[in-house]
Amino acid sequence: MPDSDALWADFARPIATAEDYIASLRGRRMTVFFMGERVAEPVEHPVIFPSINAMAETYRLASERPELGGVRAPIAGVETNRFLHVPTGPADLVAKHEMQRELGRRTGTCFQRCVGLDAIGACHSVTFDIDAENGTDYHKRFLAFLAKAQTANIVIGGAMTDPKGDRSKPPHRQDDPDLFLRIVKRDAKGIYISGAKMHQTGAVNSHWLIVMPTMRMTEADKDWSFVGALRVDAPGLTYIVGRQTNDTRAVDGGALDAGNAQFAGQEAMIVFDNVFIPNEYVFMDGEWQYAATLVERFTTYHRSSYVCKTGLGDVLIGAAAEAASHNGVESVSHIKDKLVEMTHLNETIYSSCMAGAYRSKPMASGAYLNDEMLSNVAKHNVTRFPFEIARLAQDIAGGLVVTMPSEKDLQNNEIGPLIRKFLQGRSGVETVDRMRILRLIENMTIGRNAVGYLTESLHGAGSPQAQRIQIARGMDVEAKKARARKLAGVGERRRSGG
Amino acid sequence: MPDSDALWADFARPIATAEDYIASLRGRRMTVFFMGERVAEPVEHPVIFPSINAMAETYRLASERPELGGVRAPIAGVETNRFLHVPTGPADLVAKHEMQRELGRRTGTCFQRCVGLDAIGACHSVTFDIDAENGTDYHKRFLAFLAKAQTANIVIGGAMTDPKGDRSKPPHRQDDPDLFLRIVKRDAKGIYISGAKMHQTGAVNSHWLIVMPTMRMTEADKDWSFVGALRVDAPGLTYIVGRQTNDTRAVDGGALDAGNAQFAGQEAMIVFDNVFIPNEYVFMDGEWQYAATLVERFTTYHRSSYVCKTGLGDVLIGAAAEAASHNGVESVSHIKDKLVEMTHLNETIYSSCMAGAYRSKPMASGAYLNDEMLSNVAKHNVTRFPFEIARLAQDIAGGLVVTMPSEKDLQNNEIGPLIRKFLQGRSGVETVDRMRILRLIENMTIGRNAVGYLTESLHGAGSPQAQRIQIARGMDVEAKKARARKLAGVGERRRSGG
Amino acid sequence: MPDSDALWADFARPIATAEDYIASLRGRRMTVFFMGERVAEPVEHPVIFPSINAMAETYRLASERPELGGVRAPIAGVETNRFLHVPTGPADLVAKHEMQRELGRRTGTCFQRCVGLDAIGACHSVTFDIDAENGTDYHKRFLAFLAKAQTANIVIGGAMTDPKGDRSKPPHRQDDPDLFLRIVKRDAKGIYISGAKMHQTGAVNSHWLIVMPTMRMTEADKDWSFVGALRVDAPGLTYIVGRQTNDTRAVDGGALDAGNAQFAGQEAMIVFDNVFIPNEYVFMDGEWQYAATLVERFTTYHRSSYVCKTGLGDVLIGAAAEAASHNGVESVSHIKDKLVEMTHLNETIYSSCMAGAYRSKPMASGAYLNDEMLSNVAKHNVTRFPFEIARLAQDIAGGLVVTMPSEKDLQNNEIGPLIRKFLQGRSGVETVDRMRILRLIENMTIGRNAVGYLTESLHGAGSPQAQRIQIARGMDVEAKKARARKLAGVGERRRSGG
Amino acid sequence: MPDSDALWADFARPIATAEDYIASLRGRRMTVFFMGERVAEPVEHPVIFPSINAMAETYRLASERPELGGVRAPIAGVETNRFLHVPTGPADLVAKHEMQRELGRRTGTCFQRCVGLDAIGACHSVTFDIDAENGTDYHKRFLAFLAKAQTANIVIGGAMTDPKGDRSKPPHRQDDPDLFLRIVKRDAKGIYISGAKMHQTGAVNSHWLIVMPTMRMTEADKDWSFVGALRVDAPGLTYIVGRQTNDTRAVDGGALDAGNAQFAGQEAMIVFDNVFIPNEYVFMDGEWQYAATLVERFTTYHRSSYVCKTGLGDVLIGAAAEAASHNGVESVSHIKDKLVEMTHLNETIYSSCMAGAYRSKPMASGAYLNDEMLSNVAKHNVTRFPFEIARLAQDIAGGLVVTMPSEKDLQNNEIGPLIRKFLQGRSGVETVDRMRILRLIENMTIGRNAVGYLTESLHGAGSPQAQRIQIARGMDVEAKKARARKLAGVGERRRSGG
Repeated sequence: MPDSDALWADFARPIATAEDYIASLRGRRMTVFFMGERVAEPVEHPVIFPSINAMAETYRLASERPELGGVRAPIAGVETNRFLHVPTGPADLVAKHEMQRELGRRTGTCFQRCVGLDAIGACHSVTFDIDAENGTDYHKRFLAFLAKAQTANIVIGGAMTDPKGDRSKPPHRQDDPDLFLRIVKRDAKGIYISGAKMHQTGAVNSHWLIVMPTMRMTEADKDWSFVGALRVDAPGLTYIVGRQTNDTRAVDGGALDAGNAQFAGQEAMIVFDNVFIPNEYVFMDGEWQYAATLVERFTTYHRSSYVCKTGLGDVLIGAAAEAASHNGVESVSHIKDKLVEMTHLNETIYSSCMAGAYRSKPMASGAYLNDEMLSNVAKHNVTRFPFEIARLAQDIAGGLVVTMPSEKDLQNNEIGPLIRKFLQGRSGVETVDRMRILRLIENMTIGRNAVGYLTESLHGAGSPQAQRIQIARGMDVEAKKARARKLAGVGERRRSGG
Repeated sequence: MPDSDALWADFARPIATAEDYIASLRGRRMTVFFMGERVAEPVEHPVIFPSINAMAETYRLASERPELGGVRAPIAGVETNRFLHVPTGPADLVAKHEMQRELGRRTGTCFQRCVGLDAIGACHSVTFDIDAENGTDYHKRFLAFLAKAQTANIVIGGAMTDPKGDRSKPPHRQDDPDLFLRIVKRDAKGIYISGAKMHQTGAVNSHWLIVMPTMRMTEADKDWSFVGALRVDAPGLTYIVGRQTNDTRAVDGGALDAGNAQFAGQEAMIVFDNVFIPNEYVFMDGEWQYAATLVERFTTYHRSSYVCKTGLGDVLIGAAAEAASHNGVESVSHIKDKLVEMTHLNETIYSSCMAGAYRSKPMASGAYLNDEMLSNVAKHNVTRFPFEIARLAQDIAGGLVVTMPSEKDLQNNEIGPLIRKFLQGRSGVETVDRMRILRLIENMTIGRNAVGYLTESLHGAGSPQAQRIQIARGMDVEAKKARARKLAGVGERRRSGG
Repeated sequence: MPDSDALWADFARPIATAEDYIASLRGRRMTVFFMGERVAEPVEHPVIFPSINAMAETYRLASERPELGGVRAPIAGVETNRFLHVPTGPADLVAKHEMQRELGRRTGTCFQRCVGLDAIGACHSVTFDIDAENGTDYHKRFLAFLAKAQTANIVIGGAMTDPKGDRSKPPHRQDDPDLFLRIVKRDAKGIYISGAKMHQTGAVNSHWLIVMPTMRMTEADKDWSFVGALRVDAPGLTYIVGRQTNDTRAVDGGALDAGNAQFAGQEAMIVFDNVFIPNEYVFMDGEWQYAATLVERFTTYHRSSYVCKTGLGDVLIGAAAEAASHNGVESVSHIKDKLVEMTHLNETIYSSCMAGAYRSKPMASGAYLNDEMLSNVAKHNVTRFPFEIARLAQDIAGGLVVTMPSEKDLQNNEIGPLIRKFLQGRSGVETVDRMRILRLIENMTIGRNAVGYLTESLHGAGSPQAQRIQIARGMDVEAKKARARKLAGVGERRRSGG
Repeated sequence: MPDSDALWADFARPIATAEDYIASLRGRRMTVFFMGERVAEPVEHPVIFPSINAMAETYRLASERPELGGVRAPIAGVETNRFLHVPTGPADLVAKHEMQRELGRRTGTCFQRCVGLDAIGACHSVTFDIDAENGTDYHKRFLAFLAKAQTANIVIGGAMTDPKGDRSKPPHRQDDPDLFLRIVKRDAKGIYISGAKMHQTGAVNSHWLIVMPTMRMTEADKDWSFVGALRVDAPGLTYIVGRQTNDTRAVDGGALDAGNAQFAGQEAMIVFDNVFIPNEYVFMDGEWQYAATLVERFTTYHRSSYVCKTGLGDVLIGAAAEAASHNGVESVSHIKDKLVEMTHLNETIYSSCMAGAYRSKPMASGAYLNDEMLSNVAKHNVTRFPFEIARLAQDIAGGLVVTMPSEKDLQNNEIGPLIRKFLQGRSGVETVDRMRILRLIENMTIGRNAVGYLTESLHGAGSPQAQRIQIARGMDVEAKKARARKLAGVGERRRSGG
């Protein structure tokens, strides 16, 4: 069993560039499956690589625009990627959201690092609170871990969602106890865990994972109430990469049909079979009372992280405008009106996310947390507006988005010229460029990256109903009722002959 | 060059069943491409076959429920498929729409015969009107053609949409005259046409095609102003079948990942190279004044044909309810509320389509046409509500819709059991059945049949703005203003000291 | 106590015209209050008269367009007003809805006769069903009553909504038993009832009232489970006419500020104090099992009656277009687009209502009932779309709708000329006419007739949630689930290695 | 003609309290009309007083919560009301918006001081810019004026909207040159202006007015291109207070029917007849090039000021919840869901406004201006969401909102007890209190304060289309298109065989 130093041996030289990052993923002995087959080297897998490349963009951004993608992290005292930084004031959260939008613009997809970042934020304050009340030393352990991660400049993923089985039952009452990830054994050195995590964003692309409970726990759920960090290549882990819409277009041939050949998201199911976590990487162990707090803080951070979708929105608005331009109708009034509506919805999302960042408040640990109400409101808008933006993009683009011939048809000597002839738009536009833009719109509205732009916008960081519950909690209806009573004169004697 | 009898030799024995229909498609020498390759036999092509099978369902329905799928056609005096019938009263249009919804329910996709049906309806009355004014004999020709088709019980497709090139210019002013399908030669026997038609629904599955102009024409556009019928295997035709989202899942392996393995839509680009149409199949030749009428009648029929999407809506509502049931949450109030909303929207579409059928009016030829305003209103609702229904279906179904492992993973001995264990829902539900329902929801909301349920709902029978223009034309704002003036007392002397 | 003939003595000569109708309301000794004062003669009351005049329009329509507003009623065998006719086929319901839309266009408000009409329809079939099962003779009584009413051509109102008190309790468990209208005594001659009915539309304008239960009853609620007819001037009745937005503008001076000086709605609270109903006018007495059926049939009729709001929509669309014309902007693209949207929403409501009429089905009594699902869908759209239409009307009209000087200002010698000078629109428009149109828009969106166009559209015939409950009941989710399972291949052995 | 000191003589003692403020309005010789009559003393007018009282609340807030309602103004170096402060950083704008929301909560209406505040902000920077480029001394004059106003702690109103006449023509091409306020004479001492301003918020309640151009001007419009400050009681001014929905309920009797008896908005038409402004109060005179800038800065400030509507939203949400509580249904799921939806929409508006404040940027003068895109987005949401919030409030409240008897009925000995009996809600609720809450909901959704909550939300600070134009300007579609092209690979040679 490796001691702590061994776990960091690979990262002795900090990751400095996107190329370093990609290189760091090679040669790991992970058990990864996709479509029923073992993937020997994910970096080489044409379907998986675009998701790796999307995450690599977080390093490229840090290189190209260090003020946005990088940060001087006080915990380790080093320059590191902003995705490893605990926010210590509103400006940090604002910068985080600007970075997320910019990465959305650069990739047109989910770049997969926000879960880990928001897990870091939540663990920072929750470990602090547990220690303060219980005299434990989780916070110190967590800071030590984080400092190493910051120094090495690695990718940390966050794993939260359990399979859950029968949703009306808590973990300890499930027929199969593994339906929530749990501690199956403890010894002097650490804990051993089994179960699974679902929909894990960026699993195969990360270096370490933080595992966390997915919901409020009860005392009987102690063995399910823990937080820990582990290497993604720890023994006992199996990854099953999920299928995505149009995923195999990456292997169909050229780049055109993919729409966005360079970038994609990734979500996997992770199965844990008696996986060991040394004590120094255990940040909660049985303190079930804090599970709900951890989840709430994580989701408060994470719901605002959906500001990234406004970056995707920028791309889709641009693609729709470009498609209209190719058709020679960009200045037609109903087209302009639709572009304005798309922008209005996109910026409404942005404003909700940003307002929540500016109105963040410090917690006991010193970490700042987005305003909870506004973060829920922001995410709730994300569950609606991208769908309308996507509908409008398809409206502008026209039916060709879903009836266009393949790139292989274009390359065929017999029919390629026919396609070039008949799909030409306004003069001056290359047919192939027109097709590329339409494929990008397909990609984002009914193709591979619609997975991230639409469905994930519904369910990531909690489904719509989860936000409604939080909004109900925070809406302070009693104060509002008091205001109404006051203005209505309720209880006044002098009025109305009451 | 074949004489008329030769053109019908293959159909001497009427098509009676779905099997007959499928057999009738075999062995034709059509030039069909898909993904850059010549398709020797579309019936055998795994990606194309589901679209053939969807059309075959129109024959199955006629066999199983002849009162719905069949009709006694007065023109030929035979029992034939309702898709070949010219409506002679509101009841015919009502029955047509019931048939379309039922086929939507049976296939969960576009069954591709409505364009041809609506082309028949439009040609019936327009040829009558042209003859009445010009002394031509198009209507007689058309009836003779239609009687043969009804007797043979074949599939007629309708081809309308031209490439259009620069959309600000009429056909005769395009740089390339082929960007609208046109007559390149006329001789004593008939006409020769070149150009292309786009987004052709069910092209490869049909027996004959009716080609029609796509928009209002001017006198200078005479050579682009024609209607004719031709066999789909006529010399000079090339078909390029369009790519669809997730089309290749049909060849990935089993049936699960496809979501709906049996049925799909089909849209192709058709290129015409000097294709001959004998005079007896020419139903308009240069009467440019009637192009707009033809298009308007066709779209009035066709916009109501989108009632089929309520059949797809039924399937999707059912799938969402089933998914909720698998999760054990079907009776949770917000789930029920979403199912109600989906139903409300779906039935609103249905009511608009049906009202337009009940309020249909006869034209000079005796054919009945849906109420124009209501047909436009119906289609306009179709451009909106399926998107919201799809969003709600994904909301209910959960994120697994886009992160689920492949069927091949399920079949893998190592990870198959893990998937079965961790994806189990409430007790009593087979994991594989849960996955099947989720894949169906994926199929209809972000997969292959989302092409038909969403994007085609936007653009088929005219994009949203086309309906708005028609609504503007039909809204009779002057009558409404007069009502307002009357109630407001505008112009009254005795009031207001005016 | 009057015997039956005495009750009809006033109506020996049938009401033939609107003038007859208005005359018939004079001189009745009803206890009517408005704003704390006894109203001696409602016909003379300036605030109440516009509501009488709106109902009088139902007679005017019958005179001017007898094919629409009148009918030959088979029950009495006379020509009478269509508002007294039991529908005997889809065509009757279609004509009813056309009449309602036309009256909406003519009055721009609620003309208050639909509740009575729909009560007649519901009582016809429910009395038939009770008799068939119980051997009672309610149906015969009801037909006799209705024949007299048809012959006399009077107005029948329908009274349904009880105060309800604590909404979680049935009638017999209320602290105060009067919170649902109830039988307080029975004797050989009839029943005696006490309690109240709320929101009674057109109460003071009617001749007879039918009282009905408001919801499902239990056996213990027998005394609250009855139906009866009574004259509106029966002893023991007190009417309190409700306040409406801007009601007193009718007495402020001229006609301008009212916006629609001629027509308005009316809703009153009716208190019953031991009011006698002779047996021959009792149509249900204790058959609690039928209360729910009665309510459901009534609401199914009545929800479609909200087609009247499309007539109001026509007026408001016209007013908005006229206001735009006054500003010289009618052809600006965003204005046209808003008018189209208003029309689209208005016609969507219309189509839902009409489809439900065309798809009506006969009941055992021979009366036809609108399709229940579509009627609920129609009303549910009415709870949404008029609000958006009103918002768009205000958008087009401009802020002057709510900041405009009064007519009295216009009449003032000092400032009248200033208003004329500064409120002028495009040349050729009289300033006072511009003001009239703006006041009409105010009237319908935030004034007196907004009561009917907006709030009543929410709550009349049941609040939105009531429709959702009915949609849930009728949506047949099990059939939909079966369709989804079939397409998904649920339960198939050969697929997916299941 | 008064010299400068004389103009300030009344304000020698600064206004310290709400009572001071109200007293300061007494005894002024203004020409004010309402409903055709001269109003001798607006403070005593029962219809006008609630609008004065709403503005007085801005002084009460400053007294009670000086950190929110007051500020130390650097220009005058005194403590003054925040409504007189030029924002010098994001924190000022954030505080401003918090104050506005709080005043919305306190009054449930428009408190009428924002126009003046936003005029101050816009004039500060525009006068600075003019001077910088032209060597004028407008900024100095403006600062001197503002310092006096801050010291005296008076109310400044802002007057912008001209009658506009034919909207397709600029001022100098109108048939009547007075349709835009203009300089009719200049002399050594100052300028003389004639014309009118429309929809002037809080006109009669202010002490001074700043008049400004309403739109972009051309060189020929020099005489219409000016800014000046004047006392509201300057000779030559006539005020015509506009009618509002239900305005006369203030004089009907008690307080109940008014719904909100204490507070209301106010909008008036102001006619200028050769009104003199001394040079020291002229801040722009003919610099037509700056009119557009002034309007844009003003609207950017002012569109965010609509955050006040979220305060009204708080009241309305509270009133709806209270009404539900009175009915005993507050915890019913669909009621809770509607309250959540109302809150979500309300907080979305809030977040847009606040984000724009936090992202404000300094101008050359040092004043900070809200982010322009976000301010437009915020206001655009205000043109939509309050309408839906109001609809939901009415949905929860029930039809009684528009059918309830008058307070005078309640006071009537005969029917008062009947109303008390039958309108009782759940036990423990006074009927009169239930009525008060319902009247408040009426007031805000279809009564006097719906004017401010709904219609003014549409048109204040520019109608919806005005925001769309600004969003179109700011959306930087070219940058978005470039992003799309990059991701789509447009122009790449190596891809697609292009």
